[in-house]
Amino acid sequence: MAFAATVLTLYPDMFPGPLGHSLAGRALGEGAWSMDAVQIRDFATDKHRTVDDTPAGGGAGMVLKADVLAAAIDHARSTNPDSPVLAMTPRGKPITQARVRELAAGPGAIILCGRFEGFDERIFEGRDVEEVSMGDIILSGGECGALMLLDACIRLIPGVMGAASSGVEESFENGLLEYPHYTRPAEWEGRTIPEVLRSGDHAKIAAWRKQRSEDDTRLRRPDLWERHGDVRGQPASGARQKDEGTGK
Amino acid sequence: MAFAATVLTLYPDMFPGPLGHSLAGRALGEGAWSMDAVQIRDFATDKHRTVDDTPAGGGAGMVLKADVLAAAIDHARSTNPDSPVLAMTPRGKPITQARVRELAAGPGAIILCGRFEGFDERIFEGRDVEEVSMGDIILSGGECGALMLLDACIRLIPGVMGAASSGVEESFENGLLEYPHYTRPAEWEGRTIPEVLRSGDHAKIAAWRKQRSEDDTRLRRPDLWERHGDVRGQPASGARQKDEGTGK
Repeated sequence: MAFAATVLTLYPDMFPGPLGHSLAGRALGEGAWSMDAVQIRDFATDKHRTVDDTPAGGGAGMVLKADVLAAAIDHARSTNPDSPVLAMTPRGKPITQARVRELAAGPGAIILCGRFEGFDERIFEGRDVEEVSMGDIILSGGECGALMLLDACIRLIPGVMGAASSGVEESFENGLLEYPHYTRPAEWEGRTIPEVLRSGDHAKIAAWRKQRSEDDTRLRRPDLWERHGDVRGQPASGARQKDEGTGK
Repeated sequence: MAFAATVLTLYPDMFPGPLGHSLAGRALGEGAWSMDAVQIRDFATDKHRTVDDTPAGGGAGMVLKADVLAAAIDHARSTNPDSPVLAMTPRGKPITQARVRELAAGPGAIILCGRFEGFDERIFEGRDVEEVSMGDIILSGGECGALMLLDACIRLIPGVMGAASSGVEESFENGLLEYPHYTRPAEWEGRTIPEVLRSGDHAKIAAWRKQRSEDDTRLRRPDLWERHGDVRGQPASGARQKDEGTGK
């Protein structure tokens, strides 16, 4: 079944937006994924179609109402019962490529986009909603984050990327940054392509790429490098032995 | 002068996309910022308008050519000489709200969007290009990242957000996650708004919010909390003393 993207938003006209072009747009046209942008305001219950109210305890801005959000989520769940609900919020867990892979392998995603000051916190207790942060910056709303998340998912849907891109030797897929790339011309403004890449020696090239990948990660992203080291340092074989010891 | 956004892309039709709606769209219409999406392919020099070539050393995918990218960047710089050039790449430095604030306070941004396997690395040596990562996930191209970055910048342009949102008491602005929000109804599905927020005691409310902000950051984002602690632990007054000691 095709990956079903449902976005709950006050600006449904923003979708599919950029995802209607290029790889994602072609895949949408071919039915590899579907896009449903749902207007949160349709779930307001008063004649003014109110979706927000002033923050309890005072302060600037407006807060999206839990009752209206719940009605919108319940509606989306009724058509996509097996898709997780993800709210775009800077208070959420930072998104990872591993989570993107899980989502892309599943039936779809229901993405809740905030505006104004944010969501009434009770929605996260009252409904099974995953709070996700798309980066440590503040947006005017969740919509651009939702587009980015969907783009990351869609390219992983089987058949979308084709053979054009590897999808495996990418940054983050192995916990490291990807090695740098070069292409023709061999010399550009006096700068040459590293000699080893023109050697034709595949073992040497692979070794150089692995080294650059590790060096660049250590230098540019010590946070990633540290986590990578933790993973490598785990007693993986020990864990397997334990399984064998208790296994029947 | 208005904030000038120039995006170098193979898909100029993706812009302004979602930024043509809501707050950003209204500000665009009012001239608070401008959007110029430049087709990278226009800077190819052969009759096939080639922008990419196979990776040196072999491997899947295609790499964007340094000579074509340089011509596109030089063109953008000729009209926006004082704007920084930012390339969207997972190998880049993770974007921060502090960097977004700097960009929004400046004349604009030239954003280079990759596709395929990425950029010829020499472009980063041959031109003054800032490599920026919008998150530890892989996109089909830089465009959705560029939209997210611009959205974050635009809301900070004076007059865009209006008085509707504080913009200061937000996540990351002080190195912490923001405290949770609540609004009417006072009781929803048996869940009530925390008592303190209905007390009318502004000092108590401020203290509760500060505590929640710190607790949630420690619990949800130990990485942020650690950096926050580092900042607090710095001898700020000592630094000032040093200035005074050497100052004339």
